[in-house]
Amino acid sequence: MKKLINNIDDVITEQMEGMAAAHKNIKINLEPKYICRSKETKEGKVVVISGGGSGHEPMHGGFVGLGMLDAACPGEVFTSPTPDQMYECAKKVENGGGVLFLVKNYTGDVMNFEMAAEMLNADGIKTQNILIDDDVAVKDSLYTAGRRGVGTTVIMEKIVGAAAEAGYDLMQCAALAKKVNSRGRSIGMALTSCIVPAAGKPNFDIDEDEIEIGVGIHGEPGRKRIAHTNADEITTILTDAIFEDEDYTRTLREWDYTTNGWEEKEMTSKAFTAGDQMIAMVNGLGSTPLSELYCVYRKLDEICNSKSIELSRNIVGSYITALDMQGFSITLVRADEEILKFWDALVDTPALRWS
Amino acid sequence: MKKLINNIDDVITEQMEGMAAAHKNIKINLEPKYICRSKETKEGKVVVISGGGSGHEPMHGGFVGLGMLDAACPGEVFTSPTPDQMYECAKKVENGGGVLFLVKNYTGDVMNFEMAAEMLNADGIKTQNILIDDDVAVKDSLYTAGRRGVGTTVIMEKIVGAAAEAGYDLMQCAALAKKVNSRGRSIGMALTSCIVPAAGKPNFDIDEDEIEIGVGIHGEPGRKRIAHTNADEITTILTDAIFEDEDYTRTLREWDYTTNGWEEKEMTSKAFTAGDQMIAMVNGLGSTPLSELYCVYRKLDEICNSKSIELSRNIVGSYITALDMQGFSITLVRADEEILKFWDALVDTPALRWS
Repeated sequence: MKKLINNIDDVITEQMEGMAAAHKNIKINLEPKYICRSKETKEGKVVVISGGGSGHEPMHGGFVGLGMLDAACPGEVFTSPTPDQMYECAKKVENGGGVLFLVKNYTGDVMNFEMAAEMLNADGIKTQNILIDDDVAVKDSLYTAGRRGVGTTVIMEKIVGAAAEAGYDLMQCAALAKKVNSRGRSIGMALTSCIVPAAGKPNFDIDEDEIEIGVGIHGEPGRKRIAHTNADEITTILTDAIFEDEDYTRTLREWDYTTNGWEEKEMTSKAFTAGDQMIAMVNGLGSTPLSELYCVYRKLDEICNSKSIELSRNIVGSYITALDMQGFSITLVRADEEILKFWDALVDTPALRWS
Repeated sequence: MKKLINNIDDVITEQMEGMAAAHKNIKINLEPKYICRSKETKEGKVVVISGGGSGHEPMHGGFVGLGMLDAACPGEVFTSPTPDQMYECAKKVENGGGVLFLVKNYTGDVMNFEMAAEMLNADGIKTQNILIDDDVAVKDSLYTAGRRGVGTTVIMEKIVGAAAEAGYDLMQCAALAKKVNSRGRSIGMALTSCIVPAAGKPNFDIDEDEIEIGVGIHGEPGRKRIAHTNADEITTILTDAIFEDEDYTRTLREWDYTTNGWEEKEMTSKAFTAGDQMIAMVNGLGSTPLSELYCVYRKLDEICNSKSIELSRNIVGSYITALDMQGFSITLVRADEEILKFWDALVDTPALRWS
């Protein structure tokens, strides 16, 4: 295993220290671990917090800053942060506007963020949890009941972070986040496995001439193994999977402030159709050269044009990764005026920055 | 070889097409190949153009845009662009303010950019060439007489691009560019080789337990092979190499408008000393996870603090790469007020964006 690390036990701490040294707009807390903005949150502003296992950098810590997250809680590599960690982080940054937790759909994350939300609501701090379950690859997966949460998380953090900055209250932020989730679809593929530092060997075996279609961001198995082929064909397979995905209905839990408990609510993601406007992300999984991602974007753009789908906005780069995995994912989020307005709003974080 | 490409002959064209599809502020020309801004250059503005072999993305095409480059000429992978290509690109974008070519010190690039400058000056278009030779690793190298040009290129393109935007004339831009070069030092290291698509196999062999200190951005041999060790030790070796580098004097050629020919001018890079303020770049070589780069930045920052060197500004990410090489480089540029002013100025390119 060749990695640029020191002691395996210090990997998360040291990358957090490096981020804090490089970016003066964020600061870190190590006991328990979280990354937050250097400036205190404005009174009454909803705080938007995310978190999850480490190994997906820049997500989530790299998205802390003006116009995006207020804080992020990193777990150990591919391991959920703890309820106490989320609770302490939220207590520290919240300032009267309530807390919105953005949670990728992995069993540990869901459970721990729900426990944290219960503790916060019990303290009288209004807290709501929003799940991201946008990966069309497989129905259930290792670590996940239902669809996995992947690339739509990045888009949601940007959009909901901007809305919170603009003064949306907790209900409005939650409604917008649910809308983004219901409009997002993703799928990924792997050329190689990743190596978890503590394991010291590849997460899964894959031959020199095969690729994994539908891989998860922890190396979970996808839809199928196929022979490695050219970028256009791979991009077509992934894009087809997104466009062939039909209306998808599931129940998601949300906190009900009248019953003080979790309620199941139905949510449907409508299939994409001609005429849709999209925010597109072509995302590298950690060790994929940018030049190759542009080769993918070229084909994605061509396919979408042929389907009368407009890619109104895009980001191309490595935003939600799986350590040193080679491969990429495509995320499309069907946009509307509200979504585009908050996408375009100023953002100033280590990993996403524009005005 | 597992890459996200189609036909090997189309690699550069297709990544350019992907960039143009993703970024509406730039446009591309394919015969000959160059990337330029979508908006015409303001009359009288110096145009700042760079170029070189492909395989170092996002450099240079990703740095075309407001506040940075006017255009970039990509060659084939690790191969200089041609004089005709540079000439046609410059003729297309220049608008009365003259042309500044920023050229990394590789024999082919130097020769071809000089020929292009001669052709442009013969046409009455004032053109000056600035060399970057900042790599302290080795004295001469494969493809290079003298020091190689590496990371300082990115810093120079940002700073001189901003100065040109602010109205600096050709002489002033050239003087600023030379100042940046004289104040920049870099060194890199490789964990793995890269694979040139047309070759289909690693550029060099390196064992699972060894690393290359001082590697070049085409996989050129560096100073030494050592056993793989931890990130702190590697970062210390590289940082020491930069700080131990003494005053370095060489002659560089520049165009003399009175004699209409090349003149040799002496330039000295003064050794770094306590009290210096730096712009720092920790740069991934293509397949290095961002989390590992932050682990490196942490140690770099610690070492610099201990030497009373202030890292006033920084970028951490993959900016000047070697295809899919795993490894990183450190660049330090000694700043002053003028350099910091133009570093902080607005930039809006695919790969570097702030305001």
